[in-house]
Amino acid sequence: MTAPAPGPSTSDTETGQAADPPHFRRVAIIGIGLIGSSVARAVKRYNLADDIVCNDINPAYRDEAEALGLVSRAHAAPEDAVKGADLVIFCSPVGSYGALAEAIAGALEPGAILTDVGSVKAAVVTAVEPHVPEGVHFIPGHPVAGTEQSGPEAGFPGLFQNRWCILTPRDDVDPAALARLKAFWQAMGANVEVMNPGHHDLVLAITSHVPHLIAYNIVGTAADLETVTQSEVIKYSAGGFRDFTRIAASDPTMWRDVFLNNRDAVLEMLGRFVEDLTALQRAIRWGDAETLMALFTRTRAIRRSIVEAGQESPAPDFGRTHGGE
Amino acid sequence: MTAPAPGPSTSDTETGQAADPPHFRRVAIIGIGLIGSSVARAVKRYNLADDIVCNDINPAYRDEAEALGLVSRAHAAPEDAVKGADLVIFCSPVGSYGALAEAIAGALEPGAILTDVGSVKAAVVTAVEPHVPEGVHFIPGHPVAGTEQSGPEAGFPGLFQNRWCILTPRDDVDPAALARLKAFWQAMGANVEVMNPGHHDLVLAITSHVPHLIAYNIVGTAADLETVTQSEVIKYSAGGFRDFTRIAASDPTMWRDVFLNNRDAVLEMLGRFVEDLTALQRAIRWGDAETLMALFTRTRAIRRSIVEAGQESPAPDFGRTHGGE
Repeated sequence: MTAPAPGPSTSDTETGQAADPPHFRRVAIIGIGLIGSSVARAVKRYNLADDIVCNDINPAYRDEAEALGLVSRAHAAPEDAVKGADLVIFCSPVGSYGALAEAIAGALEPGAILTDVGSVKAAVVTAVEPHVPEGVHFIPGHPVAGTEQSGPEAGFPGLFQNRWCILTPRDDVDPAALARLKAFWQAMGANVEVMNPGHHDLVLAITSHVPHLIAYNIVGTAADLETVTQSEVIKYSAGGFRDFTRIAASDPTMWRDVFLNNRDAVLEMLGRFVEDLTALQRAIRWGDAETLMALFTRTRAIRRSIVEAGQESPAPDFGRTHGGE
Repeated sequence: MTAPAPGPSTSDTETGQAADPPHFRRVAIIGIGLIGSSVARAVKRYNLADDIVCNDINPAYRDEAEALGLVSRAHAAPEDAVKGADLVIFCSPVGSYGALAEAIAGALEPGAILTDVGSVKAAVVTAVEPHVPEGVHFIPGHPVAGTEQSGPEAGFPGLFQNRWCILTPRDDVDPAALARLKAFWQAMGANVEVMNPGHHDLVLAITSHVPHLIAYNIVGTAADLETVTQSEVIKYSAGGFRDFTRIAASDPTMWRDVFLNNRDAVLEMLGRFVEDLTALQRAIRWGDAETLMALFTRTRAIRRSIVEAGQESPAPDFGRTHGGE
């Protein structure tokens, strides 16, 4: 671990390498898909626990998780997985959290930290909090990282490197438990930010949920055309369309649950998107070159900022390889 | 060149490696940006001409093109560039084509092929055809390839490898000239398809123009929010948003001209996109899980087809590198 840089911080948030890595007795991962299996791999790589177990409703995923050596034991029942665990992480679609919380409530260890990786936060608090026993520290979380792939084989330990993990604790959270969970994510390479669940849901609506919705939507629109064949859509997808198909290939159940559980923020941001799109549509219809040029010019700067912030590859075309370069 | 594969073709189109590479006396590239400079590099790599010259309205681009050795001469006037050229390629924004065609008309060599790389085709025919002298073969073209970068330095010779180039000749085109232009693109690694300009414009509206429009639009919407800061949009962009910023960083002038010159097809496809989006919006408002799940499931298959067709990287996350993998 490198020492924190001297002098005043340039950020109001705590970035990686600040705290000593924590060590847990047993980490229980509930849902061993892309994110859960990446957590398991990172916990192992950075030696953050003596033992890792998991639960998954899918027997094939449980078998894979054991065969890949990700966990010492893949339990069929969530309440069996959390026994003896001092860190429990929900990594399944958010629609499953209420029933899971109810199922494990009696088996949670006093003093354990219960967290999650769900892409919505206010609905998660509503679903989980009523079931959390006295003495268990419930701290909702969301690592903003992923790929379009699913399942235990798709995970990798570097998934959280230089990505942001948002925690949304209550004001009366135990400071030691919060510090421990922060250090856990930092040890896996993430930067940690704390905010309230409602603000998280607004921020993610525009940076993640609406982008996914419009990607799913354009792929659906293209597939349904009668004047352009599906074969043409595929052949000429390098014109831009293929960029949208990546996130439109993301896990359907996970994303269904996101939209059902972040309705208000998604509808708010979607309303703004459609309003802006209608103005662009009008500019095209009336040949308003200045409006188009003004938008197309200012959007370049945002990508530059994202690249400079280390959140995107600086290579052209996402770094895709081109034949014969 | 490898010999054509034996047996029946699996496609109704002519793919690369079919014809002998053609050789031109002089290729004149009008507009030496990303695409023009990639053509220059590919012409050189595959030895498709004795001489390459260019014209560009930007003096800095002309200097760069000569300094990079892309051309023997970068002319300030388009009519000077086309003198003695048996292949002239417009590689500037499509809004410039009418004036360019008028300017070069008197300087074109009899028997020369005049083509272009513009992203719209019907408007190009309308703008250029009236100026084309008797004896010059005007064959509009569009290689469906590119990156979000601009300028002579951004080009590379492999840009057209395994991409599709669409040609939209008139029915009375000279067959020898068409064959020569097809072979030219094939020699640079492209597959060639012939269609009519109107159909091209519909196909590209859905595979390229509307995707660019909604990418520009979401980036604009995100930048304008007052409840979410720009810094938050940048930090959490890995949740999906950053995928859209790549094509929203494309050349503003080029894209302004595309929308002004393919108005009807873009408005038609945009109308369908918005109609479908409204149905999704309604599904979210009413908690219609089945509608969401049905769309999110069928969109996965399209990406698989694009990867199988060799039009996309099979690596997760476009092959972006992840720290600590």
